[in-house]
Amino acid sequence: MSTKIVVLGAGYGGIMTAVRLQKLLNYNEAEVVLVNKHDYHYLTTWLHEPAAGTIHPDNCRIDIRTIVDTNKINFIKATVEAIHPQEKKVTLDGGQVLEFDYLVVALGSEPETFGIQGLKEHAFSIRSINTVRMIKEHIEYMFSRYRNEPERTDYLTFVVGGAGFTGIEFVGELTDRIPELCKEFDVDPQLVKIYSIEAAPSALPGFDPELVEYAMNVLQQKGVTFKINTPIKECHPGGVILADGEEIKAGTVVWTGGVRGNSVLEQSGIEVMRGRVKVNELLQAPGYDNVFVVGDCALVINEEIGRPYPPTAQMAIQQGETLAENLVNSMRGGQMKKFVPNLRGTVASLGKGEAIGIVGNKKIFGSTASLMKKVIDHRYLYMLGGVGLLMKKSKF
Amino acid sequence: MSTKIVVLGAGYGGIMTAVRLQKLLNYNEAEVVLVNKHDYHYLTTWLHEPAAGTIHPDNCRIDIRTIVDTNKINFIKATVEAIHPQEKKVTLDGGQVLEFDYLVVALGSEPETFGIQGLKEHAFSIRSINTVRMIKEHIEYMFSRYRNEPERTDYLTFVVGGAGFTGIEFVGELTDRIPELCKEFDVDPQLVKIYSIEAAPSALPGFDPELVEYAMNVLQQKGVTFKINTPIKECHPGGVILADGEEIKAGTVVWTGGVRGNSVLEQSGIEVMRGRVKVNELLQAPGYDNVFVVGDCALVINEEIGRPYPPTAQMAIQQGETLAENLVNSMRGGQMKKFVPNLRGTVASLGKGEAIGIVGNKKIFGSTASLMKKVIDHRYLYMLGGVGLLMKKSKF
Repeated sequence: MSTKIVVLGAGYGGIMTAVRLQKLLNYNEAEVVLVNKHDYHYLTTWLHEPAAGTIHPDNCRIDIRTIVDTNKINFIKATVEAIHPQEKKVTLDGGQVLEFDYLVVALGSEPETFGIQGLKEHAFSIRSINTVRMIKEHIEYMFSRYRNEPERTDYLTFVVGGAGFTGIEFVGELTDRIPELCKEFDVDPQLVKIYSIEAAPSALPGFDPELVEYAMNVLQQKGVTFKINTPIKECHPGGVILADGEEIKAGTVVWTGGVRGNSVLEQSGIEVMRGRVKVNELLQAPGYDNVFVVGDCALVINEEIGRPYPPTAQMAIQQGETLAENLVNSMRGGQMKKFVPNLRGTVASLGKGEAIGIVGNKKIFGSTASLMKKVIDHRYLYMLGGVGLLMKKSKF
Repeated sequence: MSTKIVVLGAGYGGIMTAVRLQKLLNYNEAEVVLVNKHDYHYLTTWLHEPAAGTIHPDNCRIDIRTIVDTNKINFIKATVEAIHPQEKKVTLDGGQVLEFDYLVVALGSEPETFGIQGLKEHAFSIRSINTVRMIKEHIEYMFSRYRNEPERTDYLTFVVGGAGFTGIEFVGELTDRIPELCKEFDVDPQLVKIYSIEAAPSALPGFDPELVEYAMNVLQQKGVTFKINTPIKECHPGGVILADGEEIKAGTVVWTGGVRGNSVLEQSGIEVMRGRVKVNELLQAPGYDNVFVVGDCALVINEEIGRPYPPTAQMAIQQGETLAENLVNSMRGGQMKKFVPNLRGTVASLGKGEAIGIVGNKKIFGSTASLMKKVIDHRYLYMLGGVGLLMKKSKF
């Protein structure tokens, strides 16, 4: 019997693990199963664009069967119901049970609402093709409704909770999309309001202050109102109430304020913190040498500063690459190597032609940063599916 | 002082009156004012298409200033608040007062809900660019929401109340649109349900029974469920309850069951029946020889059968043509001529490539009828704005 490797999730970490395994493994050397809820992989870091409606959602997803060789990898479209690490089993919806020798958990994150009342029920979140399609359609519906109830200007108010990476990028896209929507629905652009609300003392917490200021200036000039250092106290069907007592009536509230790990992991008996597993340098879960965690579910400590690395696509991709090599080496009796992230930089888009970022130690702005963002996006497509995929999904 | 002609409304009747006046009048012979709520004329008989999303709403509207010569006609974008026929005055929103020597009331119709509970609040109606844009967006929003709440198959159920002309044509378009929406939102077409509900003992009441049967067969084959002879008792946010007690849970309810005249007319002191004015053969309102009513607000009796003609675009257009001639003749001291409708036939679309109709005394079906429908639509565009408009809005 050949070794059984089960990969749960086909986000950045899972798909990269699978694609690298497929490349490194010889025929019949291992039995690899990839499990994913949808039959497509999607580009989470692009989702703010279809959410605002600036690109079509289909541009952000890739049929898994076009990048995974199903002669080498058994792809199962299913939802993971439970992980039993001690029994070396995984249960899928519909009752199917998978046995594993090695397990790769790459189930991604879920929105973290920090117990803020009503947020779970009444705010949208940018987390999947399905949710961003709903945000896009909701926004258009709000514009169409306003035209039939012109006293309801709140239909034209947008609250984005959280001014982190996703929140800022989404707000940037929105400012690009609003003029199109105003034209489409005969709406006076003056009536549209966009609020970016952040509980922390700064937008883009952790980013270089000069870049943060640049980003805020760009977005303010595009019409965004910032409320920084202002937690949301409550979200209700008609808008939000802030900690300072102010109420903002809004037809659309999008929450981007935080993520946590996966609830399936929480129930697995593996030790977690907010659904994330503090892995060792081989990406192993505590107590298991055959259970690996990558991507947003994995908590990797940056030893230099003693704090966890932020969960990003870049981290997940590099973890997947390292892990695939380690699994193959281990199967062949070799050594696993430590995972060392090689973070090349970060770029946040601020809408068409505008971005900020750090590449290496260099700050970049404006069109340079915007171009760099596209380069990063394209690099990933190339890594994943070569020139073919690059051509198909290119943003140029 | 030259004669003041005020035309209220730029629907089929009003715009045709204005366009003909502009053609017949000499320079400075009369002061013509056209008042309309929007700065565009729209093609009411096409609205079932953008409502379903099969064509873009903009294809159904024409900027009034592109068909009306503003050197000859003074166009005012405003809502009519009150008509004072005895004082020969009209009040617009914002307080503007227009005086007239001749008044043409062409304010169109409003939905008639016959007191059915909840219909006004919870059902959409196909009556303007604004309402059909909302219907289109609502339908798409329902599809996107279903994907996030897969237990809510009611989001994929559509109830169309009224199987008259508009109801049947809308249902036909919906059957064309559903497969596209299913593809767009990854929805199983089997889950989508369309109900056409009619209180009368037949769909398309008044139409030839053979044609009605043909239409129902075509639509049933496309997946429509008919409930004929079944009044709607109540509409609520989650669907409808029928008179026979059945409840249909539906994310979208569209009411096409009837129209009435205009509430502004009702408050004008002019004698009305359900908001419509029973005009004489010169289209004059009872008691006034200088107030004319055309289009859906006008009730014209068919003397042959002693019953009113159904309000159609064809009627409105012919009334506008006759009235414009009569006004000019009257101003020049000539005689007005009686309005005699010359009804050339009726065609109802059943979606792409399918229709039924009567032209002259001949029944037509299928692609012949579908082609004829397009010919009728194009003929109107040509009458209104010549070859230029025809080219711009062509459906071929």
